[in-house]
Amino acid sequence: MIKAPFTFQIEAQAGRARAGRFQTPHGELLTPVFAPVGTQASVKAITPDQLTELNASLILANTYHLYLRPGDELIADQGGLHQFMHWPGPILTDSGGFQVFSLAKKRRIDQDGVTFRSHIDGSEHRLDPEKAIKIQENLGADIIMAFDECAEPDDKTYAQQAMNRTHRWAERCLLAKSRADQALFGIVQGGIFADLRRESAEFISSLDFPGIAIGGLSIGETKGEMHDVIELVDQILPVHKPRYLMGVGTPQDLVNGVMRGIDLFDCVLPTRLARHNAAMTRHGGRLNLVNAQYAKDPQPIDSSCQCYTCLNFSRAYLRHLIVAKEMLSATLLSIHNLFTLIKLMTDIRHAVMSEKFDEFAAEYFEHPAGENQDHA
Amino acid sequence: MIKAPFTFQIEAQAGRARAGRFQTPHGELLTPVFAPVGTQASVKAITPDQLTELNASLILANTYHLYLRPGDELIADQGGLHQFMHWPGPILTDSGGFQVFSLAKKRRIDQDGVTFRSHIDGSEHRLDPEKAIKIQENLGADIIMAFDECAEPDDKTYAQQAMNRTHRWAERCLLAKSRADQALFGIVQGGIFADLRRESAEFISSLDFPGIAIGGLSIGETKGEMHDVIELVDQILPVHKPRYLMGVGTPQDLVNGVMRGIDLFDCVLPTRLARHNAAMTRHGGRLNLVNAQYAKDPQPIDSSCQCYTCLNFSRAYLRHLIVAKEMLSATLLSIHNLFTLIKLMTDIRHAVMSEKFDEFAAEYFEHPAGENQDHA
Repeated sequence: MIKAPFTFQIEAQAGRARAGRFQTPHGELLTPVFAPVGTQASVKAITPDQLTELNASLILANTYHLYLRPGDELIADQGGLHQFMHWPGPILTDSGGFQVFSLAKKRRIDQDGVTFRSHIDGSEHRLDPEKAIKIQENLGADIIMAFDECAEPDDKTYAQQAMNRTHRWAERCLLAKSRADQALFGIVQGGIFADLRRESAEFISSLDFPGIAIGGLSIGETKGEMHDVIELVDQILPVHKPRYLMGVGTPQDLVNGVMRGIDLFDCVLPTRLARHNAAMTRHGGRLNLVNAQYAKDPQPIDSSCQCYTCLNFSRAYLRHLIVAKEMLSATLLSIHNLFTLIKLMTDIRHAVMSEKFDEFAAEYFEHPAGENQDHA
Repeated sequence: MIKAPFTFQIEAQAGRARAGRFQTPHGELLTPVFAPVGTQASVKAITPDQLTELNASLILANTYHLYLRPGDELIADQGGLHQFMHWPGPILTDSGGFQVFSLAKKRRIDQDGVTFRSHIDGSEHRLDPEKAIKIQENLGADIIMAFDECAEPDDKTYAQQAMNRTHRWAERCLLAKSRADQALFGIVQGGIFADLRRESAEFISSLDFPGIAIGGLSIGETKGEMHDVIELVDQILPVHKPRYLMGVGTPQDLVNGVMRGIDLFDCVLPTRLARHNAAMTRHGGRLNLVNAQYAKDPQPIDSSCQCYTCLNFSRAYLRHLIVAKEMLSATLLSIHNLFTLIKLMTDIRHAVMSEKFDEFAAEYFEHPAGENQDHA
């Protein structure tokens, strides 16, 4: 069972979909929940007050980035991540594993950990399970992640080696953990290979983690492969623990993930698209607002959307900001994109609670994606 | 006298300093007032809601920029500048004159106007008094400016020619103006030359402008020369009209300006400094927050400041954002810098109203500038 202060209570179920409440030291999360990403202790172009207005509850920060800059010890000296970035609600930090494998240079993996060079200044560093936990304890997030190795999706030999290391490292992370006010989640790996995913889900489920993540998805596999992995893992994971699908976050991915039992999501997509001038639609379409077709368009991005941006600004104004290279465009588009995903999750939760999730999902997938049909 | 809806009422005086109320179609301005600059219909890195929280009342937008991009006719079609940028309060637009002389390329001045090439795409354009008024009527600001020519500060022959053209253009602007819901201000020019400034102040005062600006300052002259010009002009301008000192805005400039009879100010300084990592102090000092000395500094920029930034974020966090190139640093520093100037103006007004402005000013100038003593 999950120990206090991290109780997880499932309030309603609809098929595999769940609506729950996950208690953390910085407040309760109503699940399913989408976490905006604040890689460097800032959700890009957005103030914490604006995040609160968006009804954001959980945010994610990246261990790899904060370890390198400004340093986890500096953040600990400043009172921890909540105080440093002035976010009063729950925070989740990843383990740094994924970034070491995707961003760092000249990495050398051994059975004990990874040696790599910083993508910022080339300096040499080492991460291992104990170090990843120590850093995350310094950062002080509510939810922290076991150090894992994320393999390429299509090399089974490597996927198996990476999974085996991830399992040994998961045990070491549990041993290394010392703070009682942080929930350490284990991570299921195994690429797109059913036998590996099954083995990994069973092994991680056997350990004393209060929550379990599915890692290594949305990195090149097809949507069908992603769904197969989630369905397979979902049937093995203990029902009473929250499940977190890492780094996944198109609108369709969220609905598909909840349908397959997922409770927590995070993704850079809404804020990254905003900085590339794209507004997300609820159904997975995108408006590329730099396009000339919007130059004189007096409508908001979405006339049914209740976000600050849609209530107050036209497509013509947003396009002007983009063309004139005004920073405000990133802020206003980030607000819209985050609001869209957070509102979608609220509606999903409401549908599960009111026993209407099947209709909700059917209607959702029948709906056209929206302007430009530019699916993720 | 000033016609409705633009009544200007002086509520209190202290020496030359005045506290007043200037009525506009989009609300009343309590003067003296400082206007943040939204060059391209956006106060950089700040939302309109954040401006409201800062107690901003008047904002300035630039005719030259908006004429070139997105175009004044487009903004008129979108309902005007207030609706386009979602600013419900008073807006002031300049005439485009200053930017033509400081930003545009290959400009050719004749008696009727200026031909120039866009700094954006090199396209050829022409501004003259009638065009400048037409553009500003399309933009729809509450306060609009006569088309003027701003001369270099130290060439008397040119200063006189520019002043003479400015006077002829002022008359033409008055004739060209057609909207009753905009207050057209005349502009006094004449460089640093007392006889020219006297002639210009007398001439512009003789015309039927509801407010008068002093242009051509803060462009290379000394502070002493600036003060001499303001004092000289102040004694000529009609008492019952608001006076606007264009483009001037260090904290000391504001106090010095009010002492010499100025009611309105605008300046890009607070937002521009913010984007260059500098926090302003109330007394004219600056903190360059990229400096390593702030890396572990848990204090806010100014522990006595009540802005959102100072109430919630440390120097260490702000420095981290700067070093990590997070856009949030520009937002948070702009909030602090704008708050500092707007609060200073509120305090100045209060001092004038409560007959304590002399003590206020004496105390203000005795106070050290603050961190780094890096005066503007």
